[in-house]
Amino acid sequence: MTKPNADEHLKIGAIIFPGMDQMDFTGPFEVLSRVPNSTFYISWKDKTPVRDARGLLLTPDTTLAETPPLDVLVVPGGSGQVELMEDETVLAFLRSQAANARLVFSVCTGALTLGAAGLLRGVKSTTHWASFHVLQHFNAIPTNERVVTDGKFVSAAGISSGIDGALRVAAMLRGDAVAQGIQLYMEYAPEPPFDSGKPETAPQDVLTTARAAASELGEKRVKMAKRISAGWGKKQN
Amino acid sequence: MTKPNADEHLKIGAIIFPGMDQMDFTGPFEVLSRVPNSTFYISWKDKTPVRDARGLLLTPDTTLAETPPLDVLVVPGGSGQVELMEDETVLAFLRSQAANARLVFSVCTGALTLGAAGLLRGVKSTTHWASFHVLQHFNAIPTNERVVTDGKFVSAAGISSGIDGALRVAAMLRGDAVAQGIQLYMEYAPEPPFDSGKPETAPQDVLTTARAAASELGEKRVKMAKRISAGWGKKQN
Repeated sequence: MTKPNADEHLKIGAIIFPGMDQMDFTGPFEVLSRVPNSTFYISWKDKTPVRDARGLLLTPDTTLAETPPLDVLVVPGGSGQVELMEDETVLAFLRSQAANARLVFSVCTGALTLGAAGLLRGVKSTTHWASFHVLQHFNAIPTNERVVTDGKFVSAAGISSGIDGALRVAAMLRGDAVAQGIQLYMEYAPEPPFDSGKPETAPQDVLTTARAAASELGEKRVKMAKRISAGWGKKQN
Repeated sequence: MTKPNADEHLKIGAIIFPGMDQMDFTGPFEVLSRVPNSTFYISWKDKTPVRDARGLLLTPDTTLAETPPLDVLVVPGGSGQVELMEDETVLAFLRSQAANARLVFSVCTGALTLGAAGLLRGVKSTTHWASFHVLQHFNAIPTNERVVTDGKFVSAAGISSGIDGALRVAAMLRGDAVAQGIQLYMEYAPEPPFDSGKPETAPQDVLTTARAAASELGEKRVKMAKRISAGWGKKQN
């Protein structure tokens, strides 16, 4: 992506939806709502508040239909993401926005929604560790890094990785110094109290419990991904 | 704090308010809403949605008056925090909750609100780097660490540090394995793209710009803190 001119007003927007994981969105919002000379749009089918997976109410300020063409499209995930994978209204919105956006930025299982829209075919991508095995069924190129960039597509791994991804997006849009200023403002010099943030480092029993808790939804996502991508042979998206 | 029994239901709650910084709250919410056998309360004066400093709508689910005695009280900050420092309704709520809570957890300039309530006198505390110099005027013991614990008081530094603080609080409440499980779920293995998250490491020009942007509000906070603590000599809180 070519860096836009500083005097060019940027339209940045995220979809929100029921059952999302709020931090997939609020992490990037914290960063990207502070990009100089930009407007942040929060979009859903209507303007009724949605509840995240733990009950937090989030309120859209515009509808999918009214959302202008975005420079940056942010696509969060969360368990409710499963409902979007066969929702033609949402998939059509994502395809249409992605066609013109400078950057399409997925967080967590938001990548699977983009995958279902057929947008990640041949694209290096990541997602939440518990759904990483699903990516291949959308013909994405699974790439086990915290933030992956491939052309206009930026994907961040699970939930909190959206903060790291958003700082990179901010730097792509407005340069390193702007991103560094936002990082300083947020005092983002993390000190996790444990080294348990990814499967490679988590204690074995913690990982075993987490895998068990995630397995049912993971299998559902694989089945859906296979069904959706099987349809691609029959028609063009 | 003695760790509560696993079968003891915990009431965890946060205040939200206009002009807050949403991540001061959404970071801890992501963690603490997942503490087993607990309920999370989101409280403000009434149930009307409030806008954070960047315009995100957050909706309370209970009022200050209706909030039950909390085991854990979360106090976020943000520029709108200044309005709370002389708001007797809020200060009385904080004093009354703090008297009975197991833990009082401030994030960012939420510490200054607790300070204004007279709750941090002689308490080791931290806050956002740009407001660190204000703490002394509330007779707190300023302690330059990312997360500070002193008795029932836990304070986290700026904005994103609330995630680190909340993981520590989760461990205090339910043990390390629970906190590690939440950390893994959130995939919190941060990789900031720059080393600009605190004044000690940020590039000099980035820091200079940030200090200039923060100076006016910082001076206002110092003046208020002096005025408020001067009153303590005359009456007991």
